[in-house]
Amino acid sequence: MKILVINGPNLNMLEKRNSLQYGELSLVEIEKSISIKFPEHIFRFYQSNHEGEIIDLIHFSEEEYDGIIINPGGYAHSSVAIRDALEIVKIPKIEVHLSNLSKREEFRQKLITASACNGYISGFKKNGYFAAVFLIEEILKEAI
Amino acid sequence: MKILVINGPNLNMLEKRNSLQYGELSLVEIEKSISIKFPEHIFRFYQSNHEGEIIDLIHFSEEEYDGIIINPGGYAHSSVAIRDALEIVKIPKIEVHLSNLSKREEFRQKLITASACNGYISGFKKNGYFAAVFLIEEILKEAI
Amino acid sequence: MKILVINGPNLNMLEKRNSLQYGELSLVEIEKSISIKFPEHIFRFYQSNHEGEIIDLIHFSEEEYDGIIINPGGYAHSSVAIRDALEIVKIPKIEVHLSNLSKREEFRQKLITASACNGYISGFKKNGYFAAVFLIEEILKEAI
Amino acid sequence: MKILVINGPNLNMLEKRNSLQYGELSLVEIEKSISIKFPEHIFRFYQSNHEGEIIDLIHFSEEEYDGIIINPGGYAHSSVAIRDALEIVKIPKIEVHLSNLSKREEFRQKLITASACNGYISGFKKNGYFAAVFLIEEILKEAI
Amino acid sequence: MKILVINGPNLNMLEKRNSLQYGELSLVEIEKSISIKFPEHIFRFYQSNHEGEIIDLIHFSEEEYDGIIINPGGYAHSSVAIRDALEIVKIPKIEVHLSNLSKREEFRQKLITASACNGYISGFKKNGYFAAVFLIEEILKEAI
Amino acid sequence: MKILVINGPNLNMLEKRNSLQYGELSLVEIEKSISIKFPEHIFRFYQSNHEGEIIDLIHFSEEEYDGIIINPGGYAHSSVAIRDALEIVKIPKIEVHLSNLSKREEFRQKLITASACNGYISGFKKNGYFAAVFLIEEILKEAI
Amino acid sequence: MKILVINGPNLNMLEKRNSLQYGELSLVEIEKSISIKFPEHIFRFYQSNHEGEIIDLIHFSEEEYDGIIINPGGYAHSSVAIRDALEIVKIPKIEVHLSNLSKREEFRQKLITASACNGYISGFKKNGYFAAVFLIEEILKEAI
Amino acid sequence: MKILVINGPNLNMLEKRNSLQYGELSLVEIEKSISIKFPEHIFRFYQSNHEGEIIDLIHFSEEEYDGIIINPGGYAHSSVAIRDALEIVKIPKIEVHLSNLSKREEFRQKLITASACNGYISGFKKNGYFAAVFLIEEILKEAI
Amino acid sequence: MKILVINGPNLNMLEKRNSLQYGELSLVEIEKSISIKFPEHIFRFYQSNHEGEIIDLIHFSEEEYDGIIINPGGYAHSSVAIRDALEIVKIPKIEVHLSNLSKREEFRQKLITASACNGYISGFKKNGYFAAVFLIEEILKEAI
Amino acid sequence: MKILVINGPNLNMLEKRNSLQYGELSLVEIEKSISIKFPEHIFRFYQSNHEGEIIDLIHFSEEEYDGIIINPGGYAHSSVAIRDALEIVKIPKIEVHLSNLSKREEFRQKLITASACNGYISGFKKNGYFAAVFLIEEILKEAI
Amino acid sequence: MKILVINGPNLNMLEKRNSLQYGELSLVEIEKSISIKFPEHIFRFYQSNHEGEIIDLIHFSEEEYDGIIINPGGYAHSSVAIRDALEIVKIPKIEVHLSNLSKREEFRQKLITASACNGYISGFKKNGYFAAVFLIEEILKEAI
Amino acid sequence: MKILVINGPNLNMLEKRNSLQYGELSLVEIEKSISIKFPEHIFRFYQSNHEGEIIDLIHFSEEEYDGIIINPGGYAHSSVAIRDALEIVKIPKIEVHLSNLSKREEFRQKLITASACNGYISGFKKNGYFAAVFLIEEILKEAI
Repeated sequence: MKILVINGPNLNMLEKRNSLQYGELSLVEIEKSISIKFPEHIFRFYQSNHEGEIIDLIHFSEEEYDGIIINPGGYAHSSVAIRDALEIVKIPKIEVHLSNLSKREEFRQKLITASACNGYISGFKKNGYFAAVFLIEEILKEAI
Repeated sequence: MKILVINGPNLNMLEKRNSLQYGELSLVEIEKSISIKFPEHIFRFYQSNHEGEIIDLIHFSEEEYDGIIINPGGYAHSSVAIRDALEIVKIPKIEVHLSNLSKREEFRQKLITASACNGYISGFKKNGYFAAVFLIEEILKEAI
Repeated sequence: MKILVINGPNLNMLEKRNSLQYGELSLVEIEKSISIKFPEHIFRFYQSNHEGEIIDLIHFSEEEYDGIIINPGGYAHSSVAIRDALEIVKIPKIEVHLSNLSKREEFRQKLITASACNGYISGFKKNGYFAAVFLIEEILKEAI
Repeated sequence: MKILVINGPNLNMLEKRNSLQYGELSLVEIEKSISIKFPEHIFRFYQSNHEGEIIDLIHFSEEEYDGIIINPGGYAHSSVAIRDALEIVKIPKIEVHLSNLSKREEFRQKLITASACNGYISGFKKNGYFAAVFLIEEILKEAI
Repeated sequence: MKILVINGPNLNMLEKRNSLQYGELSLVEIEKSISIKFPEHIFRFYQSNHEGEIIDLIHFSEEEYDGIIINPGGYAHSSVAIRDALEIVKIPKIEVHLSNLSKREEFRQKLITASACNGYISGFKKNGYFAAVFLIEEILKEAI
Repeated sequence: MKILVINGPNLNMLEKRNSLQYGELSLVEIEKSISIKFPEHIFRFYQSNHEGEIIDLIHFSEEEYDGIIINPGGYAHSSVAIRDALEIVKIPKIEVHLSNLSKREEFRQKLITASACNGYISGFKKNGYFAAVFLIEEILKEAI
Repeated sequence: MKILVINGPNLNMLEKRNSLQYGELSLVEIEKSISIKFPEHIFRFYQSNHEGEIIDLIHFSEEEYDGIIINPGGYAHSSVAIRDALEIVKIPKIEVHLSNLSKREEFRQKLITASACNGYISGFKKNGYFAAVFLIEEILKEAI
Repeated sequence: MKILVINGPNLNMLEKRNSLQYGELSLVEIEKSISIKFPEHIFRFYQSNHEGEIIDLIHFSEEEYDGIIINPGGYAHSSVAIRDALEIVKIPKIEVHLSNLSKREEFRQKLITASACNGYISGFKKNGYFAAVFLIEEILKEAI
Repeated sequence: MKILVINGPNLNMLEKRNSLQYGELSLVEIEKSISIKFPEHIFRFYQSNHEGEIIDLIHFSEEEYDGIIINPGGYAHSSVAIRDALEIVKIPKIEVHLSNLSKREEFRQKLITASACNGYISGFKKNGYFAAVFLIEEILKEAI
Repeated sequence: MKILVINGPNLNMLEKRNSLQYGELSLVEIEKSISIKFPEHIFRFYQSNHEGEIIDLIHFSEEEYDGIIINPGGYAHSSVAIRDALEIVKIPKIEVHLSNLSKREEFRQKLITASACNGYISGFKKNGYFAAVFLIEEILKEAI
Repeated sequence: MKILVINGPNLNMLEKRNSLQYGELSLVEIEKSISIKFPEHIFRFYQSNHEGEIIDLIHFSEEEYDGIIINPGGYAHSSVAIRDALEIVKIPKIEVHLSNLSKREEFRQKLITASACNGYISGFKKNGYFAAVFLIEEILKEAI
Repeated sequence: MKILVINGPNLNMLEKRNSLQYGELSLVEIEKSISIKFPEHIFRFYQSNHEGEIIDLIHFSEEEYDGIIINPGGYAHSSVAIRDALEIVKIPKIEVHLSNLSKREEFRQKLITASACNGYISGFKKNGYFAAVFLIEEILKEAI
């Protein structure tokens, strides 16, 4: 299985952010732990702070990948454009948030991009990515 | 590992509900599939349409179980009382929704009970419960 | 015809409430007057102050009854759970309110449960129940 | 008994509208079916697309009629003027909506005119008018 | 001085409305009392329940009259069309409300048409019209 | 091609309104310029300040005309009744606004009637009508 | 007749404010013009920028005056305390605003104090005070 | 004096909740301290997590008790049904909250049930119950 | 014990206000009844209609008094300044309202000042002050 | 005439989106059809998913082009930055939306960028671009 | 240069407030540090807890001072009256807040008074006053 | 001292924008004037219309610069992503707006990015940047 993992703005600085909310690992450490946990899959990890780049990545994912795991960071709450891009692509798409959004600021409560994914996972820090891989496996098994 | 799985109102009638939203299995079939998928754990499955019963279950879960998986159904959006009950209990708590709530009616957008859980999973039908078990395993491994 | 008549919280105390809003009869007197007015039908009258009990009653009504008349009292404005229960059951369902809700407090204006019924009747006190029976007759005639 | 039946804007085009919402009969067919169903009463049927005409009709109804059945169509949600006209007239007034408004667009949720009627009935298509006649009978019996 | 006095919907039924809010006089009595109070002016009194007729009246008032007194009744709170008509006409325009709107229902708080008048007077029953005549006199004196 | 052009309230007074918003032509001049610009089509121009008359015009347009161009003026923002009338008629319907509504008062931001048209054009003054004719031509070409 | 005229904050600086909104006179000039216009009455003019002083003035007005004219300036939109003070005093109370509030900023649309007066007048600059005196005369005539 | 003390959902777990908000005593300790503090009265203490049970308790309190002290927990903010039950009962009713609600989450700001009590007390932890007993004494003294 | 009792705007006029809401005593009578009820304490009673004076009083209370009882009247709902003053002072502070605010106008529902007190009491008329003294006694006992 | 046609995010994937909303052509096909329809003009077509690139394009358009046609896609509803860029450029600017926005999700109802254009066109699929070219022609003719 | 520095309610108690928000200096220490930092200017420092006094100070500042620095404390968010006073005075006016308001409670987000100043500075504690003096110097240099 | 000055979208076009709001200088002229005014510091000036580029700049500023001055232009009101980037960096950060935002459109009132800065300055045109440099000097002096 080939999985595209997109991390949005500020996730490249993860180790500098509030560890209570986001956990204590850097993004590179999380990416490594995913590869180690699921050695049977091929992962491509992208991080971008640019909304347009994320849209470009999504557009061309369908041919090459079996599934998308996306943590859109701050764009989750405002980007109609990323939402529309996700809607176009027909492979399994899973939105992951490190922190439990339902406990945080009002402006993090509205989920725009998640409504164009299969579903979303929020609050489990690094483990949220693991669960996303696990779920893509399950979804693809069912589709056979 | 001993896991308490609580399903709230109307989930006993699952097989009669809209299969596009909720999938095609009955609750009993989902419960069976969980036990089969994770034979190494002990599950206790409760379903109740009564807010008060769900609160009672949560209160006394801490001593007997290693984790709670809860699908509070319609109570997810209004019950301050279930939310406060969950806050009291200190074992891992994961909220699961069969459907992708971010795509549905306005009155299903506010999440009250989830803010007292570790996190939540929405939109993966039966697989959401599987992912919840997977996540409790991961959370407990970390805690050692 | 066999009709289930469910009255929700506080309707057991009807004779003690504001008669301008609710009329002057007790619930028992209303129930009697329904039976007398429509001697050709069989009625089962339940009153419960418990949200969960009302959900249980609805779940198992489909096999035994030809129609449901429900006055959900205060639950009409907040219970997503009763709404989802009504949606599951496929016999005619009519919501009745004794008072004219459009004249009352803001918190009584939102109708959650009615959106899962065939329709609703508000403001005619006891006569609202009579009209509901009349309407079930008409709906079932059409269905033949 | 002499009953005034007022149908507001677009009800003259009923047979062209969405039959799932409004039923399959034309307004003339509905009017005929009312007369046939209740041969013991005299009905006067008016349809108007003009807010002012509806107000005029209401103003002079009191002397000639025993009750009003009104389906204000789109004016139900905005017309303070029709609402005030209804408030002036002291005979029984019943608002009828063919569709179940609680299931429809946000702008159909606010009920302005209904708050000046005895009550309202929503969602029973043609049968809503029948129930309204039935209710005027009951209300007038009580008033004796 | 020649003054056009427009009364909107339901003001023709004034004597039947709540006298605490609207005073005890009929519209004809109010009109008479205006003529008697200000014998030096010529008044033309129109009452209409039709939004379109009121707009027509306003459009052609400029050439014939020195000022407009308008009580738009329920249209005061919703009619962008009457508002725009008033904006076009350049003679003094005064909006009068018999009752004190700031004490009444929420839906009477928004003033649409008043924003296209010189000003407005609310709460003085019949005397509001007198004050409006008095004010047109003062405004026209200043304009000389 | 036979096109019905309906102009709503206050458009008969166009030459007296703010020319920055609405342009400098009178309605008659706009109508003439449409006929001259598109001599190959037959136009019927109606202007009315009456909501009910506009609804009547729409109802009976389908048999006689190939398309409707409507500028509902102030009714665009409040009339559920005109919206429902437009929904009934199945020929191409285009809503035109002379001014750019997105730049104006809050109460002009909500578009009720446009949601029952093929689409809408706002901000091009007289040219908006020209574009509407152009669009009806294109839509009908496609339908062949 | 003895009339108390209270002007609230910033009205002492009137001649320095936007003359399009407030007219061109200073407060002293307005006060003089009132006394000249109505030489048959005794006026006491107070201006205060202090909310508490205005409340004190109102409390003790009842014994000495026949009526109150109040322009609460900016306090009109926020002062529950002045509103409650006005409610206590039983002589005629008229609120005057120099500018047409319905044309101005959002935060000037809510009227708190006016709901404890007989009524209010907005938009007629100096003439609003004249109309207020005129109205107190009329109200007191009726009371005899 | 015989006083019914009802504690709602999660108050049975008090000793496990945030002591800064709720104080450090368990519910049993609070109940004991009330009995010790006021040995001259008879108290009946009920705790229930079930909305319906609380309604049942209230309904039948009137005959047996002189007053009700109720801490509805999370139901205080959503239960129209408990509110309506309290309205029916005519003995003194006092709502108590351990924490100062005006300092907490937005969803704890709306008070539904308190509007059917004599009054409410918030923020004094255990002492709030003492003050409630003190107040029932005072209210009953006055009523003699 | 030395207690400062601050009453805000309009409480000096208490005997003239609606006795259903506020009780039938004047402020002086209430103050006297407090002194008589609790002869063991020293009370200082201040009443002021001035927001600034109330702030001054609070600032200098800490050194001289053991507790503050404050009824901020209309300032309770708008004064961030009084709220900030109360936050500075560290002795027990109790807000009292004579009427049950949860039953009254929308603009009395927001509590600004209470969030800087220990807690608040609403709806018990005169007895609310008694309960406040009782509570200060209890709070100070605990603090020993 | 030289016209810049900017298409925002996701329009490069047009052929994969819902054809009921957006029509059945790809962006390249639409662009070709524009060139064929208007062979007398020179078009430059840009598509970008990057907000910043779109701003750059707009900034430097004024010197080279006679007009801008822009379909900002999802940025239409949130980008204050694109709006400000459009405001700076003084050539004709027309916003086009393929779908009828007034029929779609709430988050597509607010138009930010359109308020800095001459006007906007919504709902005519491919034909909306044709009408935009037609309108730029008309606007420039007038400007001569 | 002569500068008036007005500090509103509770700033006289600065040293007792939360030092994380407001810094650790008392108001007197801040005032001293301003005088020392800018020995070339004359400062007049006023602190008042009274809204009316602040308005009085502003009214008479224009003749004597070259600029105003104002920290309106809690009045910044509610006082239309102070806002209108500032609008009248034509010398440079700068609003200063010690804390970063955009990080604090919802009720501190609305800025009423700042809209009548040249601009505002928030979040720099004591240094905000220094920056305000610096800015008045720059503004006055430009004005020469 | 080494200071990074970031200007967001459209600030490269400053000289073409409304000079009443933004002043009359181009961005290059403002940048030059900063360098001249503070010759003792080293400035790096960046302007970008791209949200992602601004985030990248912020991420890597901490090692090289002593402080950040940022004018995020239109992104100030919507970019959670820039806000989160600023939160990560621990050097002094000051947000500057040329215009007084509290006087402008509703959509410019919400400040997202400012809540992750030390503070913000709005309304002083070019001088706002000068004040920001002045403030960084002061903040760094204190930190020693």
